[in-house]
Amino acid sequence: MKIGILGTGIVGRTHATKLAELGHEVKMGTRSVEKTLAEDKPDMMGNEPFVAWQNKNSKVKLVSFDQAAEFAEIIFNVIKGEVVLKAFENLNKEHLNNKVIIDLSNALDFSKGMPPLLLTHDGNSIGEQLQQLLPKSKVVKTLNTLSASLQVNPKMLADGNHQIFMSGNDSEAKKLVETILKSYGWQDILDLGDITTARGTELLMPFWLRLWSVLGTTTFNYKIIK
Amino acid sequence: MKIGILGTGIVGRTHATKLAELGHEVKMGTRSVEKTLAEDKPDMMGNEPFVAWQNKNSKVKLVSFDQAAEFAEIIFNVIKGEVVLKAFENLNKEHLNNKVIIDLSNALDFSKGMPPLLLTHDGNSIGEQLQQLLPKSKVVKTLNTLSASLQVNPKMLADGNHQIFMSGNDSEAKKLVETILKSYGWQDILDLGDITTARGTELLMPFWLRLWSVLGTTTFNYKIIK
Repeated sequence: MKIGILGTGIVGRTHATKLAELGHEVKMGTRSVEKTLAEDKPDMMGNEPFVAWQNKNSKVKLVSFDQAAEFAEIIFNVIKGEVVLKAFENLNKEHLNNKVIIDLSNALDFSKGMPPLLLTHDGNSIGEQLQQLLPKSKVVKTLNTLSASLQVNPKMLADGNHQIFMSGNDSEAKKLVETILKSYGWQDILDLGDITTARGTELLMPFWLRLWSVLGTTTFNYKIIK
Repeated sequence: MKIGILGTGIVGRTHATKLAELGHEVKMGTRSVEKTLAEDKPDMMGNEPFVAWQNKNSKVKLVSFDQAAEFAEIIFNVIKGEVVLKAFENLNKEHLNNKVIIDLSNALDFSKGMPPLLLTHDGNSIGEQLQQLLPKSKVVKTLNTLSASLQVNPKMLADGNHQIFMSGNDSEAKKLVETILKSYGWQDILDLGDITTARGTELLMPFWLRLWSVLGTTTFNYKIIK
């Protein structure tokens, strides 16, 4: 399929690599192609500049947000949570209409040190706000509850015996997302219901951050025992 | 041990029954003994009035908040999260000093319908605020992430193969809480760190509420796969 990834950070790159490996055509969108190509230092998490990464992933093309959205049959939103709505407000809505938007975002404030503070609270999930902003698109919230490397390769942990959650209003859209998740290796996908259920998963990040701290690794995930 | 449970709702009653069974002396504290004894209708969740419950649990005594705190070697806080701080502000601090306070609270707003809205957000957990209000007490946040019946009987689910979390500044206090948790049947107790880590677990309730909705039962719990 033709996949547009909006955002060029580590999460987007991880999905881009995996999706290209799986045979999809991938374009990554950025606010300014020029600026993204001009990056010459690692980011705050130590990830290499975009150009260095792209040299190893030459099938993936870098374009503007609008161009990536126009190209895409499915859109991955990996824009930083704190600026997602602003970024989407500025996009050409015609390129988003009727498309599935997989929303992976979490809004974090790093300005007060580590661990970052979650900017959302119960009642204002990014997933819901994005769906309200784009009533003709089909927003599916998923993949926002674990590390990027586990997102695309769940079997690296406990042979995949852990869970991924999904929220969205459109059942056809969720079926499509499920297909992609299964192609990554996900076996246990829990559909929480409509997009308002994103309130649940978007509030998990502070817990995840403490688990990271106490477990000393990001290679962990949730499983609901029932 | 002498245990004081502050709050007379279903969570407090569940622990009172279990702790009395385990041989502890239990007193439950309420803001007004008279009003609690006068209850004659089920609460919003359909739980019977206090007197009806106490008739089956006659070893448990009902006293004022201050009397329960004075009596107790360990205090369970099961006061509704939205009024916890106000309730503790009005208590005689001398009865709380140097004591372990197990904080089980979650602050929920039911006024806008179901599911209730979480009143806390990242940065203001009740656990931390309670510890700040009571610097001479030892607050341990735990048991706030699952149903009351599972809290006291974890083996009713998957033979206890799931997890309970704990946050607190005082390691001796956490050891004591661990002893109580083990007496309930808990095998897998994860110490998340100091009381600021309560921010993580206090934000789980909206997720838990959606899981309840989609799973159709409250008999479920988390396990961290690592």
